Parts: sequence; C-alpha cells; structure tokens
Amino acid sequence: MVGYLGVSDIQRLVNQIGPATFIERLAGEIEADYARWDDFEKSARLASHSPVGVIELMPTSDGRLYSFKYVNGHPRNTAVGLLTVTAFGVLADVETGYPLLLSELTVTTALRTAAMSALVARHLARPDSRVMALIGCGAQAEFQVIGFHRLQGIRELRLFDVDPLAIVKLERNLRSLPELADLKVTRAASTAEACQGADIVTTVTADKRNAVILTPPMVAPGMHLNAVGGDCPGKTELHADILRLPGVRVVVEYEPQSRLEGEIQQMEPGFPVVEFTDVVRGLSPGRTGRDDITIFDSVGFALEDYSALRFLLRLQSERSGERREIDLVPEIEDPKDLFGGTLGAGKSRLRLAS
Amino acid sequence: MVGYLGVSDIQRLVNQIGPATFIERLAGEIEADYARWDDFEKSARLASHSPVGVIELMPTSDGRLYSFKYVNGHPRNTAVGLLTVTAFGVLADVETGYPLLLSELTVTTALRTAAMSALVARHLARPDSRVMALIGCGAQAEFQVIGFHRLQGIRELRLFDVDPLAIVKLERNLRSLPELADLKVTRAASTAEACQGADIVTTVTADKRNAVILTPPMVAPGMHLNAVGGDCPGKTELHADILRLPGVRVVVEYEPQSRLEGEIQQMEPGFPVVEFTDVVRGLSPGRTGRDDITIFDSVGFALEDYSALRFLLRLQSERSGERREIDLVPEIEDPKDLFGGTLGAGKSRLRLAS
Repeated sequence: MVGYLGVSDIQRLVNQIGPATFIERLAGEIEADYARWDDFEKSARLASHSPVGVIELMPTSDGRLYSFKYVNGHPRNTAVGLLTVTAFGVLADVETGYPLLLSELTVTTALRTAAMSALVARHLARPDSRVMALIGCGAQAEFQVIGFHRLQGIRELRLFDVDPLAIVKLERNLRSLPELADLKVTRAASTAEACQGADIVTTVTADKRNAVILTPPMVAPGMHLNAVGGDCPGKTELHADILRLPGVRVVVEYEPQSRLEGEIQQMEPGFPVVEFTDVVRGLSPGRTGRDDITIFDSVGFALEDYSALRFLLRLQSERSGERREIDLVPEIEDPKDLFGGTLGAGKSRLRLAS
Repeated sequence: MVGYLGVSDIQRLVNQIGPATFIERLAGEIEADYARWDDFEKSARLASHSPVGVIELMPTSDGRLYSFKYVNGHPRNTAVGLLTVTAFGVLADVETGYPLLLSELTVTTALRTAAMSALVARHLARPDSRVMALIGCGAQAEFQVIGFHRLQGIRELRLFDVDPLAIVKLERNLRSLPELADLKVTRAASTAEACQGADIVTTVTADKRNAVILTPPMVAPGMHLNAVGGDCPGKTELHADILRLPGVRVVVEYEPQSRLEGEIQQMEPGFPVVEFTDVVRGLSPGRTGRDDITIFDSVGFALEDYSALRFLLRLQSERSGERREIDLVPEIEDPKDLFGGTLGAGKSRLRLAS
C-alpha cells in the first residue's frame, strides 16, 4: 500500500503544528538538502505547453529517494473559479522503484516556496531587515508573510496589488493568525510607495507576461529582492536594468533552469549568478556588504519538492494512526504471477486494505 | 475531486467485461490513436537510473488530454517478493491543467502491452497464423496469450521458460479461463523446439541483459516475431543477425525511442525501420508477402498509456455509481484565496467528499 496525503490531510498536518512552524521546519530540510547538492540528479523540468497553459513534471533523486512533482500553470483558470496552479507529487524508493507516498502539493508548494524564499533571505538579506514590501496579494501571499515573519523577523508589511479585493482577502487572513499579532500591516498606494524604505521587496504577481513590476528607481542599496512571480519562459517581473545596478548579486536555484525561466532570461548567457547551494556551503559569500542589492531569482526547483515530500512522509509517520493508504500498487504473493494475483484464479490472494 | 482507480478497481472493471474483451477494446482505442499520430506531442521517456533499476516518466499530450505514466524496472525485486515493474499514471485536462484520473497501471500496462502486441500482429502477421511460440512465461505471459487468442485467432501455444515453475504457473492460469478452452497448450523442451513450425514467436523474457533468446536458425520465412522483452538500453532478446535476414521488416512504435531501447539498438543508426503509425495509416505496407519475416520491436510508448487511461476513464464513467475519488486537488470557493480556503479562517469552506 502507498501512503496518501490529500488536501484534507495536509490541512490537518499543517494546522497541528501551525503553518509558521511547518514552514520553519521545512526550510531546515531544504537547507540541509541544498548543502548536499551534489547528491542530487538534476534536470530542468519537462514541460508540455498549450495555448492556455503548461503542465510540467519535475523529477529528482539522491540515489535513495526519488521524487517528482506534477504541476500546471493556467493563468486564465481563475476566471472560471479554478486555481491557476495545482500540483501533486510522489516520493519513491530508489532501491525497489516502489512509490512510498502520493501527496497533494498545491498547498504544499505554496508552503515550500515560502520556506525557500525566507531561507534564502536569511542568507542574503541584511540580518536587521524588518520591513517588507509585498507586491502581489494573491494565492502565495499569506505563505510568504508567515515565512518572513517567522524566519526573518519581518515586523512591518506594506501591501500593494492592482486588485483591491486581493488586498482585503490577504488582510483578513493575516488578522486571523494570532502569531502575526506583532506584525504591522499597511496598504501602499503604489509599488513605488510600498518599496520606499523597505528592507525586503517580495514580488509574487501572477498574471502578466514580461511585466515590469519593479524598476530601478524603486530599488535602494542594501535591499533584498525576493522575486517569486517570474518563473517561466516569457514571464518576468523585474526591469532588466535592475539586474545591472551596481552592487547587485543574483542568487538562483539551479542555473540551467533559471537561465530559461527566471528573471535572468532577460540577460546575456554569461550574466553572473550564484547558485544557492554555494551560499549554503560557504563557497560564495552571498551578501558582501550592507549596500549590496541581493536578488533571489526564484523559479522553484525539484529539490525543494523532494524535501517537502520527505518532510511530509516523516510527519505522516510521526502520526501513524492517522495514515491513509491507497492500493496504487498490487501486493501479491508471487511476484511472477501478476495475472493470477490480480485478475485470475488466484485473485483472492490480492491483499487489500480493510 | 480526482477520479481514482486502484488495483481493486481495475480488478473489478476488467473482470466485469473479461480480460479478452478489455484487451480487444483497448486495442481498438490504441489503433485509433496511432491513426492520428501527428496529434500527439512525443518525447522519449525521462529515465532516472540507479545501480539496481530505473524509474521513468512517460508523458504525452494530444492538446486535449495530457497523460503521464510512472514506471519502474527493478529485475532483482522478485528475489525479495516484489514486482519487477510497477506503474501508475494520470490523465489530465489540457484546458485547465487539472488531473482527471489517477490510476494504477501495473496490471493495466500488462493489458495494454498485450493489446499493442496483438494489434500489431493483426497488421503484420500472416492472417492464417494459428500457432504461437511463447518464450518467457513470467508476469506478462497470460496477457499476451489472451490477446493473441482473441485478436489473432491463435489456437496452439508452445511454451518455453528456463524456470519450470513459471510454466506451471502459466498453465494453471490459462486453464482457469473458460474462453481459452479451444487453445491447445504444449510445453517445448527448448526455444528452438517451440519455434519449429510456429507462425508467431513472442519473446517476453525479463532478467537478462543483451541476451540471445532467438538466433537465425530458429526463424523461418513468413514468421512474425513479437519481441517484447528487449525494452531498454543494454537489454535485447534477438541475435543481431536476425535483423539482417532477407525479407525482414522491422516495425517500431516511436523511432527515436526505439533506437535507444529496442532490438535495433544493436544496429547502425540508418538501419531501416517502419513506424507502426505508417502501417495503420496505410503509408507503409507492413507485410509485403507470405515470406516476409515481420518483427515488432516492442518497447512501449507513452501513447499506449494515454489510450489506456482514456479507456479507463470511459469505463469508470460508464459505471459512475462505483466511481472512487480522492482529494488530490483543493476545491475552494475563491481560487485567489488558497490560504483561507485550505489552512486559514475560511478552511471550513474546503469541500471534501462525504
């Protein structure tokens, strides 16, 4: 039997420990995995494009566990009441090839993206960063706020979105979280106003292609930019001139994928970037001084989903009494008798969950 | 909610209509899809190799439905009581990117492989073929026999396997099927004896790498060879000289994949092959005369899994009262409020199955 975590299971597991603790523990898992970067088999995601969206498979393996994520991106879905992004994934045992866990990853991807963003900021932002501008108040916003409040100590948040209803939704959700009681939340009239004096600027806009959310005048020395929304070919958020400002240091997850999908798709192939693993391992300094402008050009990498699935497997096993299973793989007495064990005379030998 | 077909569901669906009818109907679906070959996005499978096996993802899409299969291959698994090959897959809606169906594909892959083999034989073998040699009596064997009995009219079967227990197992399972009452089954003392006078030779051996199951003296003019077991780099069943015999015509599924994985991996890059789609569409003659030696160099292609998943979705919907569903994707009222709809204050709005 294969372990199963549906949306209702994730809801329960996350709320048992709280989303902030979930994000914090997951960030620790992700950091540990980036520290052993060379263990992982890495490839750019395998994408199937259609006129209205993309469906991607993101596999990786460290030789002990294999994982893949299925994820779609369909910007027009919200118009018909559906999510822009849905995802699920599987963790499997490399030794036998058997799947161990099938899990929803729609909610989990939002949690792991926030964990990754806050983790990178802890390595790149000025440690005394307390003020964050949040440009884009959509599906990812709450997760980012919770992550930066817990891991980076953000205490002032400045919101901007072109959709006033998204701001109202975000404010309502943030107010519902007791642990954010010490977070000051204000609305800004524009992206520029939100950025004015901010230590960190997080961009999580979704709908536009090659949008220009941030321009050089909005960026000040010492800032950390957490650019989450530009994450596929033809979809960017930063004006290219920001990447050319003096003191800019751009950190990416996996360089070959980010050259295709990240903000740096706007730059020449030799444009200098640092892979996050090198920052974690101390091979590259990340921020070199208070006036550096650090940029996390986030696109999401398969390793982060691997870390999330393994973390979920552990959480599930800690609460084994609540473990759900599905009969995704036959369990038969004689592995050479697939027919008899499943369809034929011996079919009563098929072991099913009670 | 996403439709779910576990092993127990497949067992029920297949036995409701019978495995032979299942294979026959599925062969019709596969044939119709090969006839519209150009509609499909095709790529070689994405493989992750380890010292003990391989885990593969096989995606395809026709612009309306997207499918992928997860499949492993671990020859040593049987030693620890596990299956060599397990699989599952997903069918998704290209328009929204939402998954529609998650299904077991271990049993289903055996059914679709048999459907494909019998379908190709119907296009390539002499129509009066009645005698089949079956070399390899393992997990795939029953499915192949059922398919060739129904679609090709095979009435005499000659078995050989190096493992006598596998032969006993196969004979027991075949006797349990009333529809095979008119099938004469005999044991052969060797592969050569089994092949002597056979119209069709099916090889479904599993464990050896670059094995030589068939040699030129075993092959006679007019035969059809259904070479199923050689299906990954370094794993073949036919002596290369068979492919060079006069009158040989080799049919493959998707040429770029078969050059890497099929029997033709032993041949020079320009070795002539015919893609099955061209036979189905009448663009290539398949068999040109009674003395041709036709060879189906089977490796398994993503299109066949697509056809199988779509067929399963239809079977499931025909019996909607028995449809199982899983909460793999959130269903929330406001798609921009992922947090509130799943984890936050609005979490009661999450719609779950009763």
